[in-house]
Amino acid sequence: MRRNSYIANLKAGYLFPEIAKRRREFAASHPEAKIISLGVGNTTEPVLPHTNAGLVEGARKLGTAEGYSGYQDEGLEQLREKISSVFYRGKFNIDEIFISDGAKCDIGRLQILFGAGTRIAVQDPSYPVYVDGSVLAGAAGGFEGAGYKGITYLPCTAENNFFPNLELIPQNSLIYFCSPNNPTGAVSDRIQLTSLVNAAISKSCIIIFDAAYSEFIRDPLLPKTIFEIDKADTCAIEVNSFSKPAGFTGVRLGWSVVPKTLKYESGESVNTDWNRIAGTIFNGASNIAQAGGLAALDVEGLKEIRELTNFYLGNAKLIRDALIKLGINCIGGDNSPYIWAHFSGRDSWEIFSQILEKCHVVTTPGAGFGPAGQGYIRFSAFGHRADVEEACRRLEKL
Amino acid sequence: MRRNSYIANLKAGYLFPEIAKRRREFAASHPEAKIISLGVGNTTEPVLPHTNAGLVEGARKLGTAEGYSGYQDEGLEQLREKISSVFYRGKFNIDEIFISDGAKCDIGRLQILFGAGTRIAVQDPSYPVYVDGSVLAGAAGGFEGAGYKGITYLPCTAENNFFPNLELIPQNSLIYFCSPNNPTGAVSDRIQLTSLVNAAISKSCIIIFDAAYSEFIRDPLLPKTIFEIDKADTCAIEVNSFSKPAGFTGVRLGWSVVPKTLKYESGESVNTDWNRIAGTIFNGASNIAQAGGLAALDVEGLKEIRELTNFYLGNAKLIRDALIKLGINCIGGDNSPYIWAHFSGRDSWEIFSQILEKCHVVTTPGAGFGPAGQGYIRFSAFGHRADVEEACRRLEKL
Repeated sequence: MRRNSYIANLKAGYLFPEIAKRRREFAASHPEAKIISLGVGNTTEPVLPHTNAGLVEGARKLGTAEGYSGYQDEGLEQLREKISSVFYRGKFNIDEIFISDGAKCDIGRLQILFGAGTRIAVQDPSYPVYVDGSVLAGAAGGFEGAGYKGITYLPCTAENNFFPNLELIPQNSLIYFCSPNNPTGAVSDRIQLTSLVNAAISKSCIIIFDAAYSEFIRDPLLPKTIFEIDKADTCAIEVNSFSKPAGFTGVRLGWSVVPKTLKYESGESVNTDWNRIAGTIFNGASNIAQAGGLAALDVEGLKEIRELTNFYLGNAKLIRDALIKLGINCIGGDNSPYIWAHFSGRDSWEIFSQILEKCHVVTTPGAGFGPAGQGYIRFSAFGHRADVEEACRRLEKL
Repeated sequence: MRRNSYIANLKAGYLFPEIAKRRREFAASHPEAKIISLGVGNTTEPVLPHTNAGLVEGARKLGTAEGYSGYQDEGLEQLREKISSVFYRGKFNIDEIFISDGAKCDIGRLQILFGAGTRIAVQDPSYPVYVDGSVLAGAAGGFEGAGYKGITYLPCTAENNFFPNLELIPQNSLIYFCSPNNPTGAVSDRIQLTSLVNAAISKSCIIIFDAAYSEFIRDPLLPKTIFEIDKADTCAIEVNSFSKPAGFTGVRLGWSVVPKTLKYESGESVNTDWNRIAGTIFNGASNIAQAGGLAALDVEGLKEIRELTNFYLGNAKLIRDALIKLGINCIGGDNSPYIWAHFSGRDSWEIFSQILEKCHVVTTPGAGFGPAGQGYIRFSAFGHRADVEEACRRLEKL
């Protein structure tokens, strides 16, 4: 059997396993080191009581005749209604909201809507799954120089205040856009997102908008969903996740909004196709996870989301303050759990190694997120408070 | 944006939503009818106490500082070890076992290894996801006559005792093979599976072996995994699931075995690619589900698997006996939870409608599983005992 040539186009390993490997190697050669991770964006705190009770009850009732339930292909109706009312003011019907086992998995599957040869435009730097998933789907060629052939990188750097030049977007592209951004922590404002939507419409593009960090937004003027922007429902799909707000990354629960008003150029409904794809090669998120999600969205649960995201934003402030004190330029960390630190003219992997060796702190090298991430380091605010405080003290060694 | 042309190749809806729709319509026009479903293969009984305690504890500990865990990308090591020892006598290393959110989802993703244009051979009839997933992946063309262009259907009918003529398999194909079979309930014996492995090797094929129903096998001479066959580890991937044996379809947990000895024709490792794909567009099964899976595989849990599969096999016997009493030819139901009933010369959907109208029992029309399923009906043994008994009484009206 022949190997799918698209796989061969993917270079090296996926970013985070590569970082885990380097961490393991360092730990093996430095058994005395107490390594602290500010690397992967993985929540660390216990699930808060009310949300946890939802998970426990979801598991418990499967053991009872009255509470048992099997496949939940399309997701609990009640959960989809709740998502629409909590996050979208009831704008969407339940058949426009698809429960997933997480944003990453849906990002991988959504490419099937458009197929091989699709033109891709991504913020640069960006969450690696947009690009790697596109390569696997045949929407990009091999790696050449600093990026993959066929992908339009939209640099987001200090020079443009981390919002891309939309004129670079080609006609008929699939645009991946993430705000609050992973990794830069930058949040696009209403004017910026309006210009993005207008660009997408005028260039017949579709946006896959990743709003996984929206619950970290504290500035009331910043949009928490692309659907706050007029006409976004004719040009955008939104993916989102319970992982970060409810703090249960390993439980696997997210959702995608595919509006019925979204059409291909032929006029056919994208929603209908997505429903068919999800029904054919996916089988729904865990019913236990959905019970937890439901708890996370009631009055008590929403308080817990606020409490937990406040906690991680508190970590973010500590890291940001420590970096600023060291004279390092950085953004993010105010409306997002990521701090993006600039080490101008330096190689990201080299800084990564230096921080690991000098401070025993794991970070993420900016270059792992795309060519424009070179010279940057991402600090993640997901960690225990004592560890974050200790990491901040150690950073002074830099 | 253009629609992926592969989607347009898919005809109508996925089988089971279509059945659900017809059921809803019937219920709406016959509000008095007490409909019983022997249709979808969806478990109905509460999760048994020990396995359920594993799920509850998996959820509970996420609420504690000591027990919290985040992403489990590759799956719990302990669970992968347990799967290797319980199902494969320890034959595989943990890096050959990949935890999934269910067999259906992995079947959809595995196609990425080979890509568009792959030749596909399937048992006919077969679980719809093999064919529909292949169409979505561009490994088949449009629907013509009774099947999809580019797919080699391997008829499994009463005439060949439900084992296909392997000479029909083209060189270099991806072979989907399911035993115990869904929908026919037939189980391939050691000689048959040996001939399948030999055919795959001599024709440079790879088998995706679906063993999701292996725990229903009672005949000790029948193989429960393709890896009981010599050299299968050079030509096969096995997908499997906790859904049916542990009886928690909605919890979402399965696994795939991709042996390191499995190579593409170029000599490259399939295992390495699968690891990369899983890491890139998947994020692991729910950690709560994995805690339940771990409980299901210890001594107490394995007793529960036996107890639960015995229960459903008891249902299967009732259905089979009722059909035989009516003079209807059928197979399956002894080492599998499906009974495949032959209504020679009749149209499947017509029999489906007749059973629904006369008996208020939902079944699955054989033609929904492929052209050779025409004239057959699948009865699923997943149901409450009282419902199955009542359904059997009503079937006498046929």
